[in-house]
Amino acid sequence: MLPVPDDFAPPPDAAARAGWREAERAHRPGRLAALRERMAADGVDAYFSVKREHMRWLTGFTLAEGEEKVASHSGQLLVGPEDVVVVTDSRYTIQARREAPDCVVDEIGYDLVAHWSRLCERAGVRRVAMEAGEVSHALWMHLAAAAPQVELVPAGPWIESMRAVKTADEVERIAAACAVADRALATLLPEIRPGVTEHDLALRLEWLMRTGGAEALAFDVACLAGPEAALPHGSPGDRPVRAGEVLLFDFGAQVEGYRSDMTRTLFIGEPRARDLELYDLVARAQQASIDALAASVDRTQARGEPLIGGRAADAAARAVIAAAGPGSHFGHGTGHGIGLATHERPSLSAHADDDRLPSPTVFSVEPGVYLEGETGIRIEDLVHLDVDRGLVERLTRFPRDVIALDG
Amino acid sequence: MLPVPDDFAPPPDAAARAGWREAERAHRPGRLAALRERMAADGVDAYFSVKREHMRWLTGFTLAEGEEKVASHSGQLLVGPEDVVVVTDSRYTIQARREAPDCVVDEIGYDLVAHWSRLCERAGVRRVAMEAGEVSHALWMHLAAAAPQVELVPAGPWIESMRAVKTADEVERIAAACAVADRALATLLPEIRPGVTEHDLALRLEWLMRTGGAEALAFDVACLAGPEAALPHGSPGDRPVRAGEVLLFDFGAQVEGYRSDMTRTLFIGEPRARDLELYDLVARAQQASIDALAASVDRTQARGEPLIGGRAADAAARAVIAAAGPGSHFGHGTGHGIGLATHERPSLSAHADDDRLPSPTVFSVEPGVYLEGETGIRIEDLVHLDVDRGLVERLTRFPRDVIALDG
Repeated sequence: MLPVPDDFAPPPDAAARAGWREAERAHRPGRLAALRERMAADGVDAYFSVKREHMRWLTGFTLAEGEEKVASHSGQLLVGPEDVVVVTDSRYTIQARREAPDCVVDEIGYDLVAHWSRLCERAGVRRVAMEAGEVSHALWMHLAAAAPQVELVPAGPWIESMRAVKTADEVERIAAACAVADRALATLLPEIRPGVTEHDLALRLEWLMRTGGAEALAFDVACLAGPEAALPHGSPGDRPVRAGEVLLFDFGAQVEGYRSDMTRTLFIGEPRARDLELYDLVARAQQASIDALAASVDRTQARGEPLIGGRAADAAARAVIAAAGPGSHFGHGTGHGIGLATHERPSLSAHADDDRLPSPTVFSVEPGVYLEGETGIRIEDLVHLDVDRGLVERLTRFPRDVIALDG
Repeated sequence: MLPVPDDFAPPPDAAARAGWREAERAHRPGRLAALRERMAADGVDAYFSVKREHMRWLTGFTLAEGEEKVASHSGQLLVGPEDVVVVTDSRYTIQARREAPDCVVDEIGYDLVAHWSRLCERAGVRRVAMEAGEVSHALWMHLAAAAPQVELVPAGPWIESMRAVKTADEVERIAAACAVADRALATLLPEIRPGVTEHDLALRLEWLMRTGGAEALAFDVACLAGPEAALPHGSPGDRPVRAGEVLLFDFGAQVEGYRSDMTRTLFIGEPRARDLELYDLVARAQQASIDALAASVDRTQARGEPLIGGRAADAAARAVIAAAGPGSHFGHGTGHGIGLATHERPSLSAHADDDRLPSPTVFSVEPGVYLEGETGIRIEDLVHLDVDRGLVERLTRFPRDVIALDG
């Protein structure tokens, strides 16, 4: 029995959406207060942000993915002790006033450097935390020169860390985005047959999500057939689906700003023994990571032990694949946080810099094995972890069983 | 008579696409040679690039729009005296080897800083031009510290300036993207009627482009009804089309990497006198800019005068609107270059920094007038300018006449 669309939650209705928007508005003052506390603790009196996700989370002003590139300095943000200033040019002023009514909208045009000294003076600030990992070196140097009396300090990942902890309504939106994606793939299944191309399937899956409750994609749909599945970030091409090969989909939806991310590797016709073995290996690796997380949540609840960090959650999956031999073919991390951005904190990887995971939080668990020129298998679910509720639950509901379609 | 799809060129066939890919491959050695000449003239022995458009243009390695965010350092490029090194992690290595066969693919993983000294040593370089407007301040400082023997120098807009001059095959691809967009809007016209929402029309227009020859959009479709058209960068929402109002579409397609961008403002039902007046004004402003460009090309051909710059082309359109009164409602620039990126050199604006336009080149001419809470009108065409051929031609073929649909 293949999954069918009605196995999954329907798209959110207008009431749910209105509730989430209301919740967003209610969260904003607390988020700003927490940021200002963090600023005070670090001795800075302002925070300058250039990230669209931070802007939406703190003010409500919404830029689409990638719109920063054409937005110039519009959609940049100065959080001072009193005011929150949204910087715009005339193209964005009306929108900013509408979406961020609690902020000061300052139409500076296109030249932030020329207005920097005035902006800082008006806010009464002398020491500004800047997103050094986002602000270009040239802009940093120009701002420093434009207002020598204002000290620029690299900001820590304060907002990133705050955003990694999810409220209930944020988790609901991520779960809704997961359901949109689950339903879309279930709808697509009967249309998958040998001869149809990766490109056509990817476009169709996108269409099903965008007419099925998603306002946008979380990222471009990956649909990779046979040996192409060995490219963890490949793009769909003209390659047709073929019997005896795998077919990998990596895709996600966006619902009221929040995103999902899932991967399923399907089989066309009779699965090859090697592919089935690898599938089983990857499924066990994924389960090992989730089991390690669940065990840690239990210990935290029962005995107050600290929650494990992203490195341990990654190591649990990696050990399973390494023990089977082809460990060197699992080069990427086991998972990443998700929310307003597709990739955000926490990181589940050997490079994760957190000692323990945040809670409540949502992240992907997505081990994979890739054999160049032959095949690739990845299974990815979003997982919601909440220590207080003793919870490690999959938000992705699409089954993980072997699915072999007619070949 | 409304425009119909067959008024415009059909989507390019496989032979045209193969020809463009072949042309790309043939251009790359010359582009690299020109860059190295520029580097030598400025006394640097390497150029480090983080822009996906530069990567594609110089090597063939292709990241999708926005993919930089998840690609980490993959898709970054070191052009040295001998080699061109594409930096990847395991997710992108196979793709990079395939798409950039003339480059050295160096799988550094996720930590560029740790590999920087080795990369520079291997290339034998001591003075590296860096894209200071793109590289983050944090990365710049870390790289500087990781290899103190290597001097980092802010790069000029060398590649941007080279990319602004378009080859014939680049212009062909932009023209093909224009035709995909033209056809899509012509196909959509009969489906536009009162009651249908901005969102549904935008999604439908996108679908028509993406199933009509475009591999991607140039940017998210804007479809704005009535007073929403006053938001120059607004997003389509649930607002329905209404009789007596304008309906503005701003959209573009991508064909073999190259993009189009066009805006049409339509009328639903009987146009209001005020809207017609504004439409006429904007059309005259657009024509004034194009006339000024054509006159300059003629003078350059006839008398060897220097071509006008982007400021003069902007001023020609702006003067028409200012003379009519509502000049302060035309806040954005008159146009921008387009190619692998939607916004690139040259700029047609009061802030343009070029003394004369490049040639041959392609840019938008898109004056607009916006009355907050009332209406907005913009007309945008892509224009191909070629001094040697005495050419200032519109690549956008969709008519600019007043189009009033049944209301």
